[in-house]
Amino acid sequence: MRHSVLEHTIQLLSRLPGLGPRSARRIALHLLKYRHTVLPALSETMSQLAQHVYSCSICGNLDEVNPCHICTDPKRDASLLCIVEDIADVWALERGRIFSGKYHILGGSLSAIEGRGPDDLNIQSLLQRLTQEPIKEVILATNPTVDGQTTAHYLTELLQSYPVKISQLAYGLPIGSELDYLDEGTLTAALKSRQHIHETSES
Amino acid sequence: MRHSVLEHTIQLLSRLPGLGPRSARRIALHLLKYRHTVLPALSETMSQLAQHVYSCSICGNLDEVNPCHICTDPKRDASLLCIVEDIADVWALERGRIFSGKYHILGGSLSAIEGRGPDDLNIQSLLQRLTQEPIKEVILATNPTVDGQTTAHYLTELLQSYPVKISQLAYGLPIGSELDYLDEGTLTAALKSRQHIHETSES
Repeated sequence: MRHSVLEHTIQLLSRLPGLGPRSARRIALHLLKYRHTVLPALSETMSQLAQHVYSCSICGNLDEVNPCHICTDPKRDASLLCIVEDIADVWALERGRIFSGKYHILGGSLSAIEGRGPDDLNIQSLLQRLTQEPIKEVILATNPTVDGQTTAHYLTELLQSYPVKISQLAYGLPIGSELDYLDEGTLTAALKSRQHIHETSES
Repeated sequence: MRHSVLEHTIQLLSRLPGLGPRSARRIALHLLKYRHTVLPALSETMSQLAQHVYSCSICGNLDEVNPCHICTDPKRDASLLCIVEDIADVWALERGRIFSGKYHILGGSLSAIEGRGPDDLNIQSLLQRLTQEPIKEVILATNPTVDGQTTAHYLTELLQSYPVKISQLAYGLPIGSELDYLDEGTLTAALKSRQHIHETSES
């Protein structure tokens, strides 16, 4: 095989998350098929991406301004701080427009296997925010995985010396799911956190 | 959501084959995370792709030279021509180094649903090659799908007036498969094309 630019492109594409050699080949062929439309547009937007998108120095979000528009929005409730692992988590919460406070992005979770300790996460800047901003409640919204839970436990201990309420997202049945398809862990959590909707007349 | 360059990138990425909004977001975040390594490399190779990779004017393959290195390779058997739908099919056959002849890429298959007729495929150039090159056998290697089969039938009729042998890839059990998991069509084809390995002593 001698077409090296093409192979190099495929190799780079295949290292992107979620892609493998086959999907990278498909994408490269698609790009060459639309070399006058899709290819220059994507190449252009990618060079703009590097130039115009910054990490917010307060929360770690990505935006074209620094601090990001969430951190500087006066309509947002500055007393509520939601702690998430990644930027994609902020996007997920923002898509639903369900949270009106501010965010802090850890940049991952503690992980013994992948060797990530507290110093690898944006925890120092979190502690700084707690002393500088009028935060009253911290909502731990790390993923319901072993690493996410470990991170939440660690933060709970760490934040206990600060004058803030600490809460975490509820565990339970996802809306629209069927019990039959849910894992034991979810069912256990749902049972443990069951909510009473009617007390017996005797009690 | 106001970070428009990022959104634009995600939108373009999500239109690539095999990607959706979620995988496009993951890739965009990955690119921004490695904005000084992966991002410029990919942006650079993509602009080179447009400049340095050409369609071969003979067979339709992609290469950095035109005609491509397969068409100009004197060690390849010029009497054997393998007809495939797409460039990815050439790559699949080349990966196995199992075919020593030359290729002709149709650029798709006939499709009533998608409205692709004979004029949309590289058939004129195929007929031209049959009169100009020393081709003795044409191997139809279109996909074993309805559209691929239709294309093979069409080509079989069309090529009958040319002095070439016409063959097609065998249908049957894929190596390493289990009968239990194979579809009816494959089993029917395998049964129909069964090969005798021992004749009875009477016959």
